[in-house]
Amino acid sequence: MAKASVEPVAAAEVEFDHECDVLVVGFGAAGAAAAYEAAAAGADVLVLERSSGPGGTSAQSGGELYLGGGTQVQKACGFDDTPDDMFAFLKAALGPHADEEKLRLYCDGSVEHFEWFRARCVPFKETLFDAPGWMPYTEDGLMWLGENAWPYNTIARPAPRGHRPETPMFAGGILMEKLIAAVAEAGAVTHQDTYATNLVVDGGGVVGVVARKFSETVTYRARRGVILTSGGFVDNEEMLADHAPVLLGHDKVSDGTSDGSGIRMATAAGAATRRMAAVEIALTANPAVICRGMLVDGLGRRFINEDVYPGLFSHRAVQHQPGPYWAIIDEAGHDDIDEADMWGVRPTHAAETVAELEESLGLPPGSLEQTVETYNQYAEKGEDPYFHKDARWLRPLKGPFAAIDPRDGFFGAGKHGAGTGAGGFTLGGLDTTVDGEVRNNSGEPIPGLYAAGRTASGIHGEGYISGTSLGDGTFFGRRAGRAAALTKGSE
Amino acid sequence: MAKASVEPVAAAEVEFDHECDVLVVGFGAAGAAAAYEAAAAGADVLVLERSSGPGGTSAQSGGELYLGGGTQVQKACGFDDTPDDMFAFLKAALGPHADEEKLRLYCDGSVEHFEWFRARCVPFKETLFDAPGWMPYTEDGLMWLGENAWPYNTIARPAPRGHRPETPMFAGGILMEKLIAAVAEAGAVTHQDTYATNLVVDGGGVVGVVARKFSETVTYRARRGVILTSGGFVDNEEMLADHAPVLLGHDKVSDGTSDGSGIRMATAAGAATRRMAAVEIALTANPAVICRGMLVDGLGRRFINEDVYPGLFSHRAVQHQPGPYWAIIDEAGHDDIDEADMWGVRPTHAAETVAELEESLGLPPGSLEQTVETYNQYAEKGEDPYFHKDARWLRPLKGPFAAIDPRDGFFGAGKHGAGTGAGGFTLGGLDTTVDGEVRNNSGEPIPGLYAAGRTASGIHGEGYISGTSLGDGTFFGRRAGRAAALTKGSE
Repeated sequence: MAKASVEPVAAAEVEFDHECDVLVVGFGAAGAAAAYEAAAAGADVLVLERSSGPGGTSAQSGGELYLGGGTQVQKACGFDDTPDDMFAFLKAALGPHADEEKLRLYCDGSVEHFEWFRARCVPFKETLFDAPGWMPYTEDGLMWLGENAWPYNTIARPAPRGHRPETPMFAGGILMEKLIAAVAEAGAVTHQDTYATNLVVDGGGVVGVVARKFSETVTYRARRGVILTSGGFVDNEEMLADHAPVLLGHDKVSDGTSDGSGIRMATAAGAATRRMAAVEIALTANPAVICRGMLVDGLGRRFINEDVYPGLFSHRAVQHQPGPYWAIIDEAGHDDIDEADMWGVRPTHAAETVAELEESLGLPPGSLEQTVETYNQYAEKGEDPYFHKDARWLRPLKGPFAAIDPRDGFFGAGKHGAGTGAGGFTLGGLDTTVDGEVRNNSGEPIPGLYAAGRTASGIHGEGYISGTSLGDGTFFGRRAGRAAALTKGSE
Repeated sequence: MAKASVEPVAAAEVEFDHECDVLVVGFGAAGAAAAYEAAAAGADVLVLERSSGPGGTSAQSGGELYLGGGTQVQKACGFDDTPDDMFAFLKAALGPHADEEKLRLYCDGSVEHFEWFRARCVPFKETLFDAPGWMPYTEDGLMWLGENAWPYNTIARPAPRGHRPETPMFAGGILMEKLIAAVAEAGAVTHQDTYATNLVVDGGGVVGVVARKFSETVTYRARRGVILTSGGFVDNEEMLADHAPVLLGHDKVSDGTSDGSGIRMATAAGAATRRMAAVEIALTANPAVICRGMLVDGLGRRFINEDVYPGLFSHRAVQHQPGPYWAIIDEAGHDDIDEADMWGVRPTHAAETVAELEESLGLPPGSLEQTVETYNQYAEKGEDPYFHKDARWLRPLKGPFAAIDPRDGFFGAGKHGAGTGAGGFTLGGLDTTVDGEVRNNSGEPIPGLYAAGRTASGIHGEGYISGTSLGDGTFFGRRAGRAAALTKGSE
């Protein structure tokens, strides 16, 4: 096994080519937030980016930011919200075992964080997209991310908290465009095509990095700190096998550079990790179809309220229910869907009766019939005693019926070509304090070493909600940038 | 956070109190196997044990060893078995993502490994316990561990492979008694009450350990290698929160010393880990009841064939199905169970009809009725199209009925007092080669450092079968002992 070495290099062996106060490794959203705050605090900041331009996976993302507690967009849309409600929701939705210390800070600081984005010229339209979905096909600035679905609506007062820049569908491009401009304006310098490979250490602390620029080795001294924001490890098959095998064989939500290099060079220097098995995984299912019909497993049985945030039904499915899965809808439900919300997906099976549909899907005889019969019997009364789907979406299903394999969704039929029906990224990473300091295996911060974004373990327990990765990456990236800039360091 | 330091200590700063060729840290089954082989290969071996006597968690265990491929016990009981069938079963049952390289060696070497135990005087009675169960209440030497249940009986030719020393119930004591005697006879010396805390490193390699004996610091030089066999980390709440939070709040299958110290002192020295989230978790359910009745979730629905190895229905339940769970049985089924096989458990709910039982259990109206009706309708024909329970256990259930919360099982009512209804241990650990060499984060072995047992990641993917922990711990412990003894080291 000939992996490139990620072992640390002793400072005594290095002649430094470049020098700065704070060195940020990776220019996605977390790196941008860290670089901006470090520069704004007066530090001389250098950002290394391995690609030929900044943006990273963040620039290709949906651009959702999970924010709340009473932002201007929430108020304009008529919602009262509090940090406590936000905390209660996220504790449940990102759980079990969400990081309560980080989460508390994240919720309490969320309105300020929202204003920070606005001050960096990120545009948010003050309108709500009011339907279950992955990403609005509108320019609306606010969306629900499961807050109004059972059981979350019994845990915290529901308010939509999915904030997104003003553009249809993928909004990560606008987000990063604004943050990149802000970083430049704050005075940070970027070195592109520069791939950090090893940390430089001196007496137990980190004082720089060794990098590769094409065939050349380039070395950087960081007087106050190195901040690792180079993403997670979904693109590294060996690391997936070692730490998060559930993602093996699935699509990668990444720009292709999430190779875990930041995590590996830090653990090689004695850094501790946390929750390396935690992942986001999205089934390529169409929420517009599913909330109007039902989602069943390979035994024809429902397993979750279909109006929940699609990240949650995905997680339940891919992590906990053996496939196959089927999205079942009737003609009236199908006719109710806006064409733009179908994401180009077409039903693959159709039948006049449930019995015929069941047979063509290869489900056990009578299984889907029993499910639909029970569902209809309660839907008639606006109830769902099994999974508590909201009455808004309950209606007895009547033939003709159609079925879609939710894994034939937008990845497969859409942008990702021959997809596997599910895709995701890693949530585990370096063990950090709330100021982004990386801990060693004895629980002590390693002097000069910081991390944020998916190189670190953030607010997440075993669950995931859209907007919490860009959200905690930028929030704790900012804190790491400030902490590094204000440290005494090795100056 | 004031954790004790696990950071490595430089050899230049250490004056060694003791010296040996091979130093084994931890005297459970893996440590015994490593120490025996190292000593048998001619090395001067020292074993450190933090407790006042050897044995560790292994001595308190059921003592099952997963062995096969045609052992003498299997042959005497009339079973043909091959390494390939053993491999196919374990690949599925320990999967997904079992370690195929280690598994291949483990299966191919299994008959030899069985003979090694016999040569160490471990007694195996050549008789079969032919019922689903955690541990036989007999002295039988062989038991099924799910090989004859669906889907495994379609994947590999079924043969029982649960080998166990000749005693009713817990057989780990006998196993360790014999191994401890063999280690002493081979010439290895044991230092008890000695808790290794830090590795001693020299130029990138490991050359010894620092330990604590009561209030004293004691140092050990190991000329050829240090073998870490100090168990997993189920007793370390912080490590569970960081790496395997699913075990938080559950009972611990441990002698109380599985604090992850071996893993932590190695990662502090730059060792890589693997599969830190993997766990064994056992629901305290009674297989005798469950295979004769049914196991349902909080919606009154079955979710697995009840005749499968109880470790597998436990894993499916605790990891993938929200509780509560209920074991349902009828009078005829209850009367069929040997009293000794009830483990002292008594039904907590009883009713003449399914509708009454369903109501008293708080299940959705009609849910359990539907489940029992479907079950009975197919059981009449000896079929189970949903979960493929074997016809041997299929019989329409007739009132009166009883229910047991499977979490009221043997931990709660039995030896563990006020248990939580489930208990387990960790399977993740240091990333090792097939010879127990510990890898760094660049994939290279760290000179002088070895690990086996639950301090290392072994053959397991996401699944677990009884006997594979003692099994792979001793198998790869032996390999590590030989490898360390035969290395040139720092002599």
